[in-house]
Amino acid sequence: MPHDFAAFDTILAADRFADRHIGPGTAERDAMLRALGDASIEALITRTVPGAILTQNPLDLAPPLTEGEILDDLRIFAAKNQVKRSLIGLGYHGTVTPLVVLRNVLENPGWYTAYTPYQAEIAQGRLEALLNFQTMMAELAGMAIANASLLDEATAAAEGVALAHAVHKGKSTTIAVATDLHPQTRAVIATRAAPLGWTLTDIEPDDIAAIERAAPFALVLQYPGTTGGVRDLTTEITAAHTAGALAIVAADPLSLALLKPPGEMGADIVVGSTQRFGVPMGFGGPHAAYFATRDSLKRHMAGRLVGVSIDAAGAPALRLALQTREQHIRREKATSNICTAQVLLAVIAGFYGVWHGPDGLARIATRIHLAARIVAGAATAAGFTLRHDTFFDTIALETGAQTDALMARALAAGFNLRRIDATTIGITLDEAITHAELKSLTTLFTTGAEALASPLAPLTRRSAFMTAPVFHAHRSEHAMLRYLKRLEDKDIALNRSMIPLGSCTMKLNATAEMIPITWRAFADIHPFAPADQTEGYRALIETLSTDLARITGFAAVSLQPNSGAQGEFAGLLSIRAYHAARGEGARDICLIPSSAHGTNPASATMAGYRVVVIGCDKAGNIDLADLDAKISQHAEHLAALMITYPSTHGVFESTIRTICDRVHAAGGQVYMDGANMNAQVGLTSPAAIGADVCHLNLHKTFCIPHGGGGPGVGPIGVAAHLAPHLPNHPMRDDAGPATGYGPIAAAPFGSASILPIPYAYIRMMGPEGLREATSIAILNANYIAHRLAPHYPILYTGAGGTVAHECIIDCRGFQATTGIQVEDIAKRLQDYGFHAPTMSWPVPGTLMIEPTESESKAEIDRFCDAMISISTEIAAIAAGTMPRDDNPLKNAPHTAAELTATTWSHSYTREQAAFPLPYLTTTKYWPPVKRVDNVYGDRNLVCSCAPMTDYAAAAE
Amino acid sequence: MPHDFAAFDTILAADRFADRHIGPGTAERDAMLRALGDASIEALITRTVPGAILTQNPLDLAPPLTEGEILDDLRIFAAKNQVKRSLIGLGYHGTVTPLVVLRNVLENPGWYTAYTPYQAEIAQGRLEALLNFQTMMAELAGMAIANASLLDEATAAAEGVALAHAVHKGKSTTIAVATDLHPQTRAVIATRAAPLGWTLTDIEPDDIAAIERAAPFALVLQYPGTTGGVRDLTTEITAAHTAGALAIVAADPLSLALLKPPGEMGADIVVGSTQRFGVPMGFGGPHAAYFATRDSLKRHMAGRLVGVSIDAAGAPALRLALQTREQHIRREKATSNICTAQVLLAVIAGFYGVWHGPDGLARIATRIHLAARIVAGAATAAGFTLRHDTFFDTIALETGAQTDALMARALAAGFNLRRIDATTIGITLDEAITHAELKSLTTLFTTGAEALASPLAPLTRRSAFMTAPVFHAHRSEHAMLRYLKRLEDKDIALNRSMIPLGSCTMKLNATAEMIPITWRAFADIHPFAPADQTEGYRALIETLSTDLARITGFAAVSLQPNSGAQGEFAGLLSIRAYHAARGEGARDICLIPSSAHGTNPASATMAGYRVVVIGCDKAGNIDLADLDAKISQHAEHLAALMITYPSTHGVFESTIRTICDRVHAAGGQVYMDGANMNAQVGLTSPAAIGADVCHLNLHKTFCIPHGGGGPGVGPIGVAAHLAPHLPNHPMRDDAGPATGYGPIAAAPFGSASILPIPYAYIRMMGPEGLREATSIAILNANYIAHRLAPHYPILYTGAGGTVAHECIIDCRGFQATTGIQVEDIAKRLQDYGFHAPTMSWPVPGTLMIEPTESESKAEIDRFCDAMISISTEIAAIAAGTMPRDDNPLKNAPHTAAELTATTWSHSYTREQAAFPLPYLTTTKYWPPVKRVDNVYGDRNLVCSCAPMTDYAAAAE
Repeated sequence: MPHDFAAFDTILAADRFADRHIGPGTAERDAMLRALGDASIEALITRTVPGAILTQNPLDLAPPLTEGEILDDLRIFAAKNQVKRSLIGLGYHGTVTPLVVLRNVLENPGWYTAYTPYQAEIAQGRLEALLNFQTMMAELAGMAIANASLLDEATAAAEGVALAHAVHKGKSTTIAVATDLHPQTRAVIATRAAPLGWTLTDIEPDDIAAIERAAPFALVLQYPGTTGGVRDLTTEITAAHTAGALAIVAADPLSLALLKPPGEMGADIVVGSTQRFGVPMGFGGPHAAYFATRDSLKRHMAGRLVGVSIDAAGAPALRLALQTREQHIRREKATSNICTAQVLLAVIAGFYGVWHGPDGLARIATRIHLAARIVAGAATAAGFTLRHDTFFDTIALETGAQTDALMARALAAGFNLRRIDATTIGITLDEAITHAELKSLTTLFTTGAEALASPLAPLTRRSAFMTAPVFHAHRSEHAMLRYLKRLEDKDIALNRSMIPLGSCTMKLNATAEMIPITWRAFADIHPFAPADQTEGYRALIETLSTDLARITGFAAVSLQPNSGAQGEFAGLLSIRAYHAARGEGARDICLIPSSAHGTNPASATMAGYRVVVIGCDKAGNIDLADLDAKISQHAEHLAALMITYPSTHGVFESTIRTICDRVHAAGGQVYMDGANMNAQVGLTSPAAIGADVCHLNLHKTFCIPHGGGGPGVGPIGVAAHLAPHLPNHPMRDDAGPATGYGPIAAAPFGSASILPIPYAYIRMMGPEGLREATSIAILNANYIAHRLAPHYPILYTGAGGTVAHECIIDCRGFQATTGIQVEDIAKRLQDYGFHAPTMSWPVPGTLMIEPTESESKAEIDRFCDAMISISTEIAAIAAGTMPRDDNPLKNAPHTAAELTATTWSHSYTREQAAFPLPYLTTTKYWPPVKRVDNVYGDRNLVCSCAPMTDYAAAAE
Repeated sequence: MPHDFAAFDTILAADRFADRHIGPGTAERDAMLRALGDASIEALITRTVPGAILTQNPLDLAPPLTEGEILDDLRIFAAKNQVKRSLIGLGYHGTVTPLVVLRNVLENPGWYTAYTPYQAEIAQGRLEALLNFQTMMAELAGMAIANASLLDEATAAAEGVALAHAVHKGKSTTIAVATDLHPQTRAVIATRAAPLGWTLTDIEPDDIAAIERAAPFALVLQYPGTTGGVRDLTTEITAAHTAGALAIVAADPLSLALLKPPGEMGADIVVGSTQRFGVPMGFGGPHAAYFATRDSLKRHMAGRLVGVSIDAAGAPALRLALQTREQHIRREKATSNICTAQVLLAVIAGFYGVWHGPDGLARIATRIHLAARIVAGAATAAGFTLRHDTFFDTIALETGAQTDALMARALAAGFNLRRIDATTIGITLDEAITHAELKSLTTLFTTGAEALASPLAPLTRRSAFMTAPVFHAHRSEHAMLRYLKRLEDKDIALNRSMIPLGSCTMKLNATAEMIPITWRAFADIHPFAPADQTEGYRALIETLSTDLARITGFAAVSLQPNSGAQGEFAGLLSIRAYHAARGEGARDICLIPSSAHGTNPASATMAGYRVVVIGCDKAGNIDLADLDAKISQHAEHLAALMITYPSTHGVFESTIRTICDRVHAAGGQVYMDGANMNAQVGLTSPAAIGADVCHLNLHKTFCIPHGGGGPGVGPIGVAAHLAPHLPNHPMRDDAGPATGYGPIAAAPFGSASILPIPYAYIRMMGPEGLREATSIAILNANYIAHRLAPHYPILYTGAGGTVAHECIIDCRGFQATTGIQVEDIAKRLQDYGFHAPTMSWPVPGTLMIEPTESESKAEIDRFCDAMISISTEIAAIAAGTMPRDDNPLKNAPHTAAELTATTWSHSYTREQAAFPLPYLTTTKYWPPVKRVDNVYGDRNLVCSCAPMTDYAAAAE
């Protein structure tokens, strides 16, 4: 029988998830290897990965599970979470995701597999969704402009503080913080302030004198306050302005449907979480924060911003605006390392606004407020005192000696309340409250009491908001469904074709990985729910952390950073804390290669480091001589080297261990940027190359979808000596070491609700599958390099003549002979149905191509055919058979409208424009706009729906 | 406090599901009423619905629930079902739905909201998916051709019997039935045979003499047999042929990946269920049955058939083939009333084949067979005897006195086994079996035993199957995801635009209704699981039955019929049984108006009735004089009148009660076809108009999606005197009255797994919401009639000058002046992004338009704008400014390929062809092919992928 069972297991194991995740099958792999002249995958790997770091040891991970088994496995974790009604507040609320949005956006690969909308022409759908979000948030806040979202409320507040400092004209290093700010927001601001030498001063409500005394550069207020109090902030804001500070208000957006908005009180910056606009709590995230500001500050605003512009035909078209603000341009001069947004979540919040409209939001807010008044009436009738007479959705009850008993009774009735302090309980009502729940809540106190009268009259909102047609046109489910479909159809996501973005690892986001995240036992958990209700999450987090530690070779992992850039910042703080703990706090030099991601210097600056740039040699490798020189020059101040491996040039540098050794010898620490981790898993590891800390992009290597530009998760792994210096959290002991440096994100475990994705990926692939994935990613990249090399120079290769998991093709040569720039190639690819590779990074005038292991040879060949076809188009220009100023590249992309116009006056045919290769006759994607004019849009900045009459009409 | 709670309830109730389901908001309703000149909705209803049948009494239903509440409510039902591992077999098996298919097909409105692919040009995606299904099933069965699916295995077998009789040249009325046929299949054949006077004779395996003695017109065999035995059927089939009978084999398709197919044994017809190809058991359905036959019988085959043809440009294109076979043409001459297919489920089964390929299916089958051998080894080692030495996935164990104990131990271990008889247990292994389950199963018997050797060698399959490229090209999830997306993108479904199909009620299929059907507690339940494990289903079925009884005004409801046509048949059998029970069995005349659905006479014929047609007057109403004459003529033989109400002409006939009274007075029963029930709910009822029995199309009025052409549910409601005469089921006592006439579907409760949809719809709408929906459906239809009347004559209106919930526009006048036929208008609508209304039914040369309540005025106006724009195009032809033979209608639809071709030689511009109205510039849908040539395809019949080399290549 063991024999038969073994046979059964063998045949069972033949249906591997890895074979579904990895694109090329055996025959395809063999064909690619033949093309490359390698006898086997191992032969290719051996000539690609330096022997010093290549391991043959299998990863110490559990054997693979099937799709069905992983769902059963995750159900066990889910069953260990208890879904109670959490009325804890603190910025996290029960909400009702409109089911049409749940199914057609959050559970739809057409939305969640999309990439960041850098290629605007093929991202008009989600850009419109984000413009809705921006419009809604700016108008709710009463501000001129809002961005396309930030990571969470706490980091948004911290970004506001950084902005305030950047524009501050005095010498203040003080941040005045209202005592009724959410505690996690205060803590994140404190973590961010520390390395920059800024200090926090706590200000009681309405204590104008204290503001004057503090003379801060920023005043941070909460509206309504964390314990529910609502007051007019005008005098405090005025005092801040008098002191030369900016006033930042963290405001609950739903309350703004009823309340006078902070903008009308003079606020300079308004931030907050839009979680309660239809995004599940998910044990803390991901959610989209909003960031709104006045017109004069818009060019200082961090984060992505969608703006209206025109296309080459003069038609309205959307794109990311003011991109020069971003860290990838400003590098060490940046004041923020933000390079992402919570796009999918902002999109959902925006659609929530479209679904309900301003009247619906006001109705929901009114309902919640009434529920709070009813509970307040029962509580006061029972003899309890309200801490704040003026409240919206949260009441704070002075419960004295009855506090414990009341908390226990509430729990027994299924409610988590907030224990504000030993004698005070907070109750925050939300959209999901039912009649039965409300009854149950009041019964905690008494029955038969009247609701309190609404105390909000003096602060009632008078101004209109969300007046654009889009917030009034899609109220039936059919209308909404079709609006969602129309927008989705405009975009290219992974469900159409490969997105070969170098460094962004757009691999498969398997359905099995995505299904659990909308289960209630993961989705409906408050981040500050009692620990005994969240044991499933804890177990999942521990298991995933252990797996990631084994994959990286490190001793400890923190999952708190909710983006790659946050991970960089967290990792550098770990290094900083380590040096300080050893009495070497003076070390403040961070070496960064010139080829680094722009976030690296930005993060280093945020961590209080001085950035010193290391040059690269012609092969794209770090210039060892320059490294030595800089180490010598800064030896006693050397804190860290930040390095990406394989390099951002797409090669395994053979000197990596030498580099790390020399930094260590000089007392420095090595920070490895994990962006290219997909070339390492199972073949080598950050620890093996000699790094002390790295971040991982779980949204790259570990299958969390990009969601149209976020959400990401950027955990860090550290060696044992850094383990005491990880982030932690003031409200949850087990979120990090007691010796940690505080939180860098609002939630204790960051974007916890999407952690089932990497967990499922790792568990389904198993140790062999992961190694195989890495190997095939390298095979695929080398095959592309091989096919394209006759047509486009491959810029860098490693010692063995191979690239790693991506390759850079050089397009600079075309400029002189044809006038063709890399952007023309990128836009022309849209006519072929492809999203362009990474453009002009890290080397201007190049394209960086990363196929990932999930693309089949058939798909890769289709992409290569397109690239080669484009090269023949360029050749025709070079040969003079096609004009330099009128050719398919310069005019790309081509829309259906222009191709079906009576007039066609180009030098090439309509067929050449639209159907240059045969496969397009069966799978043509039509770009909805022609090439977008970025300059026009930045000169005529419009970042909301309202003024765009044409646009709004079209949206109907 | 009651006051405050009431206020809370009021504001809570303001967020009604009905407002999301119903398209027009208040302002839109008012605008439409103004256009119609009605002061209120009630005024419109009063002049539309005859006073004699219009009720003001609210429906006796529970008050409405919200989307969130209905999910909580259904979770309670779900929790009352117990999900055990059912190894019962009997044609229902555990299966693993590929998750990429689950999410992107079964849970995707792009697939499930599509209509039947009558308009082939805008249905190429699902037609391709169905062609895959046909190809796979024909090749697995070893037959020349397979159709696009039937309702279930039992009805497919019965259709085979009917075919056999139709082609039978002798006088036999005997059906020979193998004793190892699934019992429910035998029972359904018996129910179908009875009214036609056919009798069943049971034949033991290999009893050739018995076949000779029976001299049947059909022999029905099971392969493998119901208790698992596998034998070569060649001699039995030969004996059948010798006797002049056709041989029908019901075969498990998965077994055919390993076993010699019935086609190679000489079978004439092979049928079976494809449930185990990725479709959840769902307590019995819906699933797709397959029906494969030899080439010479293809034109006798019932059901839909997809065939390859060419379009007007000569490119390959798919469409429904041989439509003249269908009941809507043959009416009372039809041998089958089948007018639907289980499209969504056949599509899923087809994609299951694409996902696994022939090698994957063989591997799965081998694994299952090995598991069965392992269990058989353990059981025989423990001393039990196998009833059949040759088995595939099912073993039958002679368990003697240990039977009860073994069943109990198995249940305790989580397994439902089949109790074949008092001393025999059946165990059927399936794809989902895990190592742990297998171990647990063997432990029921013994441990350490060897697996039995495979007994299948003599019957091993040698022939290749599924050789087309499509079954080899999409093995990675990315490849599959994109293939699904590519096909979906070719089609118009409700997520793009309204589908104004008269009589088919293409209303919203709300997400809240769809979500529960894939919950495991509904999906993973075997139809013959013990009753105490299915209490949730039972409670749901009872509640829904009660609700439907109240809506129809009837005493009892049977949910067993799994299509509308099955409902008709079931209802007529009820009438037949009623007459027989009263000693009036000689009544065999069924009156049917000339305007009836083609299924009506077909069903009547199947029920053994003679059909007498009643004429209509010029207003489209039943000719009362003709009715009286026919009643007089057939008085003593009058069994029933079948009538659709409102009529198929889209009006409320004011004489309906008179009609019913006269039929009753003559001793007849009134059968109401419920196709137009969406004009009745809450305003009147079948009982109120005087009917005795009706079927309901839950996929029309009650929101089950059409799924691309099925699945449907067609329950019947009956008055009290018919309640003893409903279908029942031999294997489940509570499926119908003990006095019932047997099953008409394989599963006791038909397509049980989709019953949460109508349940949720009714519960979320509540009594007022349902009445409002009906009213707005009538408003919308009248508004369309009002807008179109100046451009197209409205053919019929009721006494008050209104239409009911649909209207017929007359296009016959264009033929003489312009040469334009109704088909040209239908195809031109595709250029405008719309699915055509019902074409040439019930009146040739007309379009029947039904908007439903779910369409907003904005969408209806868009449709009317398109229709009016088309009328101006026709006017241009009439005026001579556009040629009769070269205009946008005759050339419609226009593809992107032709519009972007260099050559454009038409009398109108490209813009006129593609963008005749402004809205198209933002929401253009591109038909993937030009007009499909039906005649070419029927003359050159190709119904599988394999021979279509071009097509297969394109599919990659």
